[in-house]
Amino acid sequence: MALLSLSRRLRRTPFTDGVEAAGVKAYTVYNHMLLPTVFRSVEEDYAHLKSAVQVWDVSCERQVELRGPDTGRLMQMLTPRDLSRMQPGQCFYLPMVDETGGMLNDPVAVKLEEDRYWISIADSDVLYWVKGVANGYRLDVMVEEPDVSPLAVQGPRSDDLMARVFGEDVRDIRFFRYKRLEFQGRSLVVARSGYSKQGGFEIYVEGGDIGMPLWNALFEAGRDLDVHAGCPNLIERIESGLLSYGNDMTRDNTPHECGLGRFCDTRSAIGCVGRDALLRVAKDGPVQQIRPISVEGAPVPGCTGPWPIMVGQRQVGQVTSAAWSPDFETNVAIGMVKMTHWDPFTDVDVVLPGGDVRAAVVYGVFWN
Amino acid sequence: MALLSLSRRLRRTPFTDGVEAAGVKAYTVYNHMLLPTVFRSVEEDYAHLKSAVQVWDVSCERQVELRGPDTGRLMQMLTPRDLSRMQPGQCFYLPMVDETGGMLNDPVAVKLEEDRYWISIADSDVLYWVKGVANGYRLDVMVEEPDVSPLAVQGPRSDDLMARVFGEDVRDIRFFRYKRLEFQGRSLVVARSGYSKQGGFEIYVEGGDIGMPLWNALFEAGRDLDVHAGCPNLIERIESGLLSYGNDMTRDNTPHECGLGRFCDTRSAIGCVGRDALLRVAKDGPVQQIRPISVEGAPVPGCTGPWPIMVGQRQVGQVTSAAWSPDFETNVAIGMVKMTHWDPFTDVDVVLPGGDVRAAVVYGVFWN
Repeated sequence: MALLSLSRRLRRTPFTDGVEAAGVKAYTVYNHMLLPTVFRSVEEDYAHLKSAVQVWDVSCERQVELRGPDTGRLMQMLTPRDLSRMQPGQCFYLPMVDETGGMLNDPVAVKLEEDRYWISIADSDVLYWVKGVANGYRLDVMVEEPDVSPLAVQGPRSDDLMARVFGEDVRDIRFFRYKRLEFQGRSLVVARSGYSKQGGFEIYVEGGDIGMPLWNALFEAGRDLDVHAGCPNLIERIESGLLSYGNDMTRDNTPHECGLGRFCDTRSAIGCVGRDALLRVAKDGPVQQIRPISVEGAPVPGCTGPWPIMVGQRQVGQVTSAAWSPDFETNVAIGMVKMTHWDPFTDVDVVLPGGDVRAAVVYGVFWN
Repeated sequence: MALLSLSRRLRRTPFTDGVEAAGVKAYTVYNHMLLPTVFRSVEEDYAHLKSAVQVWDVSCERQVELRGPDTGRLMQMLTPRDLSRMQPGQCFYLPMVDETGGMLNDPVAVKLEEDRYWISIADSDVLYWVKGVANGYRLDVMVEEPDVSPLAVQGPRSDDLMARVFGEDVRDIRFFRYKRLEFQGRSLVVARSGYSKQGGFEIYVEGGDIGMPLWNALFEAGRDLDVHAGCPNLIERIESGLLSYGNDMTRDNTPHECGLGRFCDTRSAIGCVGRDALLRVAKDGPVQQIRPISVEGAPVPGCTGPWPIMVGQRQVGQVTSAAWSPDFETNVAIGMVKMTHWDPFTDVDVVLPGGDVRAAVVYGVFWN
């Protein structure tokens, strides 16, 4: 950990007052905005997330809104995933690529109407890319960052808490679908989604003015459910194989390297600007790919730079996220591994700041 | 201040090892990278910067490289400043705008060759905008982030320190010009520029491998000059009227509002994508503009959100950066003020978290 100097440039959110009152211990910066990382401790937050329910300020998942007659065409230019059958009410996880097939972001797209989408983004200025493409191709689309700040409710008791605030209808929302539900007379998009595998929802809070009223209503309603303020949890997300843009993948990587080949419909995603490059990748296959890795020994320190993965004197990959898992009683990690060594049970060494430790590519997809 | 959780996504730089060894006390995050903010204290760093010489890790001023036959055309599309007479060897400060004339960044462009530039950026993903425009207009340009990390040498003794490492030629570099000078057999762009008004240079360190050798060479050579590790200083940059993108200006603002109208050659900057919008602004004039503001009373806390500027019950602007100035014995601030109240000596109130304080629009441009 280090100290962070605050300034207007690191934007506060509609929920920051609540986050501070709840005793936030640390932040990261994400899309020029404050994102909490710890409340009690990473381990306590982890155990609580897996057993109860948490409210997360994920306002930093900024929205890029596309609206206008050319919206459908522009959306398909941004991703190799085939959007032709996407309907209003659906959310799609999308690899977003540049003309070389390099990952620019891995957002969730929310289709609001036939010609209107929100793109709920990971940590890079997608607005700039979309505006540039729209302008260059002279498309008739408005591209803006609206006043929408997602608030996540995550954990096994999410349905109960949400039903108390939004009504029983919330229980019927299917995974990666949304409904419009009322809060204080405002119709909000409520999706069954979120950056954990413990179940839950994301509320797209439209209008910062109702941020704190909604925050307070959730805590008020959830007292007997042991609701706590929380945040994306490093341990849980590694166990669950949830990738982090900027950590586990960058512009250097194709979706196929990131294990996102199943979202690349390169034959039907007509118009994707990275399509030619990805057709080549799809044909040849990637030469490295993201893998779950278990690292032996004592709890590892925070992974602040890639840790080389070695076999003898030869580097065969790198670890990009790692944490001690209390439940699995080992260090869980995510890394990019060359095809020569990506098979399950392959023994490797990982070069930590303090010295080499034994590790292995894990069998199966991820722990959760 | 808050605690910052470190991860690979908040990139370390080629100089971070040196920064840590020099006792960095806090960071901010800038272009997904660590930027030091304090070494001894903001006040001590300030006094030292104005009297001696400092070495700054400003790697976070990432470069966007443009290369290829359509480079000149693309460069002019990005800015309303007329680039037609820019020569290799020159650096230009550029407002960069979108199609509505909104500020996307305020970088320094470095012309390397007729068809090759670096754009040294403030805190937003300019790479995404430039790639989008280049792709949309089907321009024949390579757009990349090269392995180039600026290291600044700032303060009144900069010339002496730099001459010891790069030779006497460095003294002849004119303001916003650069020369190619040798370090360990590598030819580096060395410009007379930097984010202070205390004089100095920026070394565009090409190749992270020579980062620490250069860092060490500068400290070795400057022992008797009282060289210290430093960083952009909040107090000094406000006194000097150096604006900060994301703090003092955002996409909501035109260059004219930011006092950058002199860089808008809207009649000759043929091809700038924001030209039509800015012709309108140039004709009508802005209705608000950035002003230096002095705030009375005790030292203000850090400005983490805009502070409203009031006259009676009416909001006439907002303060976006502020700090106590030991030299001027008042709080110096930067704010956006409506035209009805932007004249020098206008008395206003500023709404701080702790209550209202008296303030005034300052006569003259800025303190320094």
